[in-house]
This record gives sequence, C-alpha cells and structure tokens, in this order.
Amino acid sequence: MKVLRVGICGWGNVATGMFKAIVDNKFFIEQSGVSIDIACIGARRDNPKCNPGEIKIYRDIFDIPNQDIDVVVELIGGVETARELILKSIKAGKHVVTANKAVIFHHGDEIFNAANDHGVKVLFEAAVCAGTPIVKMLKEELAPNRIKKISGMLNGTSNFILSNMEEGNEFDDTLKLAQDEGYAEPDPAFDIDGLDAAHKIGLLASIAYGTTLPPEEFYIEGITKIDKKDFLYADMLGYTIKHLAVSKLNKANIEIRVHPVLISKTSYLANLKGVRNGIEIDTDLIGTIHIAGSGAGQESTASGLISDVIHLANSNIEIIDTKKKNNSLPIKDFSSFSFQYYFYIEVQDTPGVMASITSLLAHQNIGIESIVQKDNLEENLVPIILVTNSFKETKVKDIKESILNLESVNKLRTIRIEEI
Amino acid sequence: MKVLRVGICGWGNVATGMFKAIVDNKFFIEQSGVSIDIACIGARRDNPKCNPGEIKIYRDIFDIPNQDIDVVVELIGGVETARELILKSIKAGKHVVTANKAVIFHHGDEIFNAANDHGVKVLFEAAVCAGTPIVKMLKEELAPNRIKKISGMLNGTSNFILSNMEEGNEFDDTLKLAQDEGYAEPDPAFDIDGLDAAHKIGLLASIAYGTTLPPEEFYIEGITKIDKKDFLYADMLGYTIKHLAVSKLNKANIEIRVHPVLISKTSYLANLKGVRNGIEIDTDLIGTIHIAGSGAGQESTASGLISDVIHLANSNIEIIDTKKKNNSLPIKDFSSFSFQYYFYIEVQDTPGVMASITSLLAHQNIGIESIVQKDNLEENLVPIILVTNSFKETKVKDIKESILNLESVNKLRTIRIEEI
Repeated sequence: MKVLRVGICGWGNVATGMFKAIVDNKFFIEQSGVSIDIACIGARRDNPKCNPGEIKIYRDIFDIPNQDIDVVVELIGGVETARELILKSIKAGKHVVTANKAVIFHHGDEIFNAANDHGVKVLFEAAVCAGTPIVKMLKEELAPNRIKKISGMLNGTSNFILSNMEEGNEFDDTLKLAQDEGYAEPDPAFDIDGLDAAHKIGLLASIAYGTTLPPEEFYIEGITKIDKKDFLYADMLGYTIKHLAVSKLNKANIEIRVHPVLISKTSYLANLKGVRNGIEIDTDLIGTIHIAGSGAGQESTASGLISDVIHLANSNIEIIDTKKKNNSLPIKDFSSFSFQYYFYIEVQDTPGVMASITSLLAHQNIGIESIVQKDNLEENLVPIILVTNSFKETKVKDIKESILNLESVNKLRTIRIEEI
Repeated sequence: MKVLRVGICGWGNVATGMFKAIVDNKFFIEQSGVSIDIACIGARRDNPKCNPGEIKIYRDIFDIPNQDIDVVVELIGGVETARELILKSIKAGKHVVTANKAVIFHHGDEIFNAANDHGVKVLFEAAVCAGTPIVKMLKEELAPNRIKKISGMLNGTSNFILSNMEEGNEFDDTLKLAQDEGYAEPDPAFDIDGLDAAHKIGLLASIAYGTTLPPEEFYIEGITKIDKKDFLYADMLGYTIKHLAVSKLNKANIEIRVHPVLISKTSYLANLKGVRNGIEIDTDLIGTIHIAGSGAGQESTASGLISDVIHLANSNIEIIDTKKKNNSLPIKDFSSFSFQYYFYIEVQDTPGVMASITSLLAHQNIGIESIVQKDNLEENLVPIILVTNSFKETKVKDIKESILNLESVNKLRTIRIEEI
C-alpha cells in the first residue's frame, strides 16, 4: 500500500468534509491501493464543528509546504494568497491539489509551468463541478479524441434558479430560496452574473484546447435579465432557457462563451433540473458523451479532492500533466458570432406596431422564423414574441435600440438560441 | 514525450479502427505527453480494408508477446485463445489492453493475479460500453466513494430494439432493422438474451465491490418475451420498459442481476433511447452520477483502447490496479429478492374472471396496487393489466402457473418493476 502524506491548508467546510471523507471511507480509498495520511493542517483558527484529533494544526498556512508531506491541499480560497501558497508548495517539491477555480483560472499557466519545472503536479478536479469527474475525463479518458464542443450548465445556483422560474416562480423569490437552502451565497453575484461558470469553462477549454490561463477575454453574461414569462413563451416555441457555458473548436479559432440560451426542450441539457451540473461533450471518436452529477457541496468536493490525491499516488510523475500550449488558435471574437434570437417585445396595442417592427427587421435584412402575438397583458399592453433567423452579433445593439425607439414599444428582452 | 511500443493482436474492424485513430488523432494523443508506436501486428491474414504500411505482420499471434514492445493489445475475441495470449503476454512482462469482455468475465481473477505477479497491468476500458469512460470512472474518479448502486442499459442492441418497440414496432421487425443497420449480429442471441449486458455488469461489480471473476451465478434474462403492447400499458401506468443491468451493495450481500424492468417514464434511464448506453451510479459522496455515450462501434472502441494505452504511460506501475478481493460478501440469491410486478393477463371476457384472478392473488397474500381492464382485443379477448405490491421471487412461478390454469385465462406476461 502506497502511503501519501497530505497537508491541508484551510479548515472550513470543504477541508473538514475532506477530512471526514478520508476517515469514513478509508476502506474504499485503500481498495485503490493508496492510503492517505493527513499529516498536518494549516488554519488560523480551530473549527468548532470538527476535531482533527492528534493532527498538528499550524497557525501559519505557509508553514505547511515545509512539512514532511507529499501533497499540499489548498482550500483557503481567494486568489492572490492561494497563488502564493501553491507556488511555495511547488518550489518545496510538493504536489498540489486544489478546489480553487479562481486561482487556476487567473494563474494556471504560471502555476503549471512552475510545477513542470519542479517535477510535481497540480490537480484541480474539484474546481469544476465538485466531484463529478469532468476534468479527468477530459484530460485522460477522452484524450484520444478531437473535442469538438463542450456545452454545459456549470453553475448549480443558476440552474436551480432557472429550473424554479420554469415552474412559474419569480427570479427574486427563487434566488431567496436558493440562499435559504444554502445553494447560493449571501452575495450571489459571482453565480448569477456568470463568473463562476466562466471560470469553469475557462479551465475546461485549457484542458481540451490548450488555451491560456488566464484565457483571452471572452463573452460572459448571467441570468439576471430573464423573466419568468420568457419560460412560457420559450415553451410555446419548443424551447426552455438554460445558462450555458460553451467551448468549441473551430477551424480558425476557439469559442468560449457563457450566457443564457433557448435550447430545444427535448435536448439532454434542457432536462437537467435543479442544482445538478451537467455537460455534453461532442467528440470525433466516441460521439456525444453526457455526464451529470452534483456540482457542489462538501461531500462531492471531498470526493474530487481525494480522487486527485489517489491519482497522484497512481500516476507517473515524469509525464507532464497539462496539455502543451501548442494550439495557437485565438479566442473567437464575440462580435463575429451569429445567433438566432428570441425577442420579447412588449407593445401598446395600436394599429401598425407589428408592421413597424417587421419592416424594421426587414430593413436590417433579418428574417423572421416565427412570430406570435399573445393575449393582452395589463393596460393595453401586448407581448410580441419573435424568433429571428441567424444574424451577426454586431447588429444586435443597433436593432435593440431601434426597436425600443419605436413609439409603441414599451419593453424588450432578447435571448440567444443555441442549437444543441 | 514518452513512447509506448504496442503490438496489436487481431486485425479486424476494431483493430483497424484503433490503427486509424492512432494515425488520425496523433496530435491529440501526443498532447497527453504520450506517443504510441504500433510496432507490430499479429494476424492470420491481411485485411483488404486497411494497409498498415511498414508495420510487420506476424502470422502467429503468439509471436507478438516476444517482440520488443511495452503493450499487447488483444483484439482476437473469443475466450480460450484470448486467455492464453493474455497470460503469455503477462509472463513476457508486457502490459495488456483488451476490449474482450468475455475473457475478463470468465478469467479475470486469474489474469489480474498473473499481472500482479509479473508487475504489469491489464486494462479493459473498451470492454464496457466501448469508449464511454465507465471503467476508469468507477476505478479511479469514484474511488473515494461507497458505490451504493449501479444501474444501466449496457447493451446497445437491446436498447435499440426496446426503443423501437416503444414507438409501436414489433420485436421481429426491429431486430431485423437492428441487423440491417449493423447494431445486431447475424446471431443476436448474445445481445437479446442478456449475456452481453451480464458480462459488463459482472466486470463493473468486480471493480466496485471486488466480486470474483468469474462471478458467482446471478440472474440473467433477455428481452425476447416482451410484446410491443406492453409498452402501451406500461405508458398508461407511468412507466416504460428497459433492459437493465444492476449491481448493488447491501449489508449482507451484493446484488447482480440483468433483466427487463418497468421504470418510471420520468427517470433518467427511461429517456435514453436507441443504441446509446447509459448508466446511473449512486454514491455516498457525489450522490447520483449519470453518464451516457456510444456503447459500440469501431471508433468509440478505439478511443477506449487508446485511453488505456495512454493510462499505462501515465501510471505508476507499482500500484496494483484491481480492487483487493477483500469484500467477502456473497452474491444475493435471486430467490430471496422481492419485486413489484406488472402482469399482462389476457382473458376471455366471461363473468367472474376478474374475481377469480384477484381472489387467487389475495389467497397468496399479494396486494394489488392498480388494476386496469382494457377494451376488447379480438375474439372476445380482454387484457387485464395488474401492478402488484412487492412479493418474493419464490412465489412467482406458482402464481403464474395458477393464473394460467384459470379457465378463462389465455395468456400471461410478467415484467418486474424497478424503483429508480
């Protein structure tokens, strides 16, 4: 049995969850031929919820890399201090396991280069969808494949909120419910503005396509502009609404983007509800792979972290772990994209308003795939629902402004349509 | 770059698919830090569809283990000759990669023991659902977890046939379609009688629970007794019909079983149609994981084989790869199971027939959850559809006989109901 000595930095929920899982599931872990020995913990203060017994706690986390250990598990969160700790650990010849997507997103290349220089590995399975094994699947099991496209819901909070809005609830109510149930942080901006999903798809793109970390700039939009009524209209048209993170290999460039989309109700991703994370990977050899699981939570994250430690014991450290950055394709400029669009246009029910909208679009050379005028809302307001043909992103801003400038138009919302 | 020298035994569809994928996807494979060099091929005859160029072909496959190679890829199929070739390769100090589920099912323990004795590994990702990465996921990424239950459709042909019957087609027609489209073999018995799925769940149980290979005897039933009308009645009751392979960890034993089931229409597995394979794994840390992908085909199998070769290059060979057989739990005797049952009973529409069936069940102490009498079929025949409460498997045979012995009963079909 190979014994790996581990030092855990940070002693919050995730760290104590890992500690507990290592103790509770010792039998299963050791069936992999590996024994994990938690040698020390770095934490400014004790955690009243978890007594680590005889394990020594260092009050300065920067003491941990100097101990007689094989692996530093970085669970302090944040970016700059985490970067410093990881680099110090690497220089001390320790492998690093982390659940910290932000630090890898912003400093991944620097960190992996340092790791290669020092003959150690930095693993981050738990940084993307917690223990759901997406990182290793992309890095290893799918390695023989051309990864054509990765699409998924990578943020549990956003998927929880949208799934609840689909059932007819308001955004604010369901955000509060998510906070009450512990899915969303007290400050939910990071989730609902799309940044969390952006970090995760950035990491996956770096694995699949060798894009840089930090990645070049890419388009990020959250879910705050969606109204519960959009789900009704989307449903009528055969769609539902999801917050999608996408990365795709094109001939001349690589797409990375994160935004809400209408997707076909019958697609796999449309049917993943609640806090679950799910991903669809299009490959040349295996075809389309689906994987879904719990994307957050103490125990799921612990599973991802421990599987990384087991992997370190099982792996041949000579082999460089990150894809070579030999794919010099640029990130596709978002302005060069074309999408079909869903338009929700709220108008005063006056003669000629439909004609002025359709002629405005015709003038811009934008075809209409379907158009529905629904029953009155309140105060003589009528919703017009449009699905356009595909057109260039560069046109969107002007078109939206022009429509909103029409005399009878009261409100406008737009959502891109994704072909899955 | 680590170079692995590989000898391929067998030169049929799968072997040439692997050869082609190694050539075509060289760029992606080498991004993993591994270069695969096909050093030699063992094949009794050339394959007119594939010219291996300069690579030497040995006419005796048993010459391959003696060559200057790191890995023998066994793609000859069958059981006894494959076993002999694998054992010879191990004794010659070569790693082995195989897609052959039958040889691992029947001789796995002998093969893995020999491999451990000789310090080499035997990998078989492609033996279960081709390239869909279920084997490595169970073995590594989910290693920190207690695997509570594995349930899945592991045979693409059966799932294709049942999905087509669900659309209203007859068994025989859809089997012929499966054969025409190349999903089913000319002799389809291995697929439709459940043996292929049984081999696969046997391998997964050995990984998850350390059960022996060959496993102790377990229950295997195929899809040949299902009628297309059963889908209509199942649908009416909120179910669909799938051919399910199950392995589950109980307190005192381990379940392994393969048979058709009614499962809830809203479940994940119910919605996987066609030749796709899909699996649901219940774990203690990550919760429920779903994975689905192409479970057959030359290219998907090639992906599984190549990912195993990459894994060999990346892995630390000191670590024994198979779970220790320290889980001495027996396989649960199928007669000790209890299931809810779906009964299709075709009766002559005479007074008292319903009463005689229900009193027969009452006499056996079997409750009825729902009962539906449908419109007449032909010739005064009426179908009665029953869903029973859960009862012991030991009772089933007697009950079926008693019902068939009732004067007005013409026909009886039963399917177990699975809670997912």
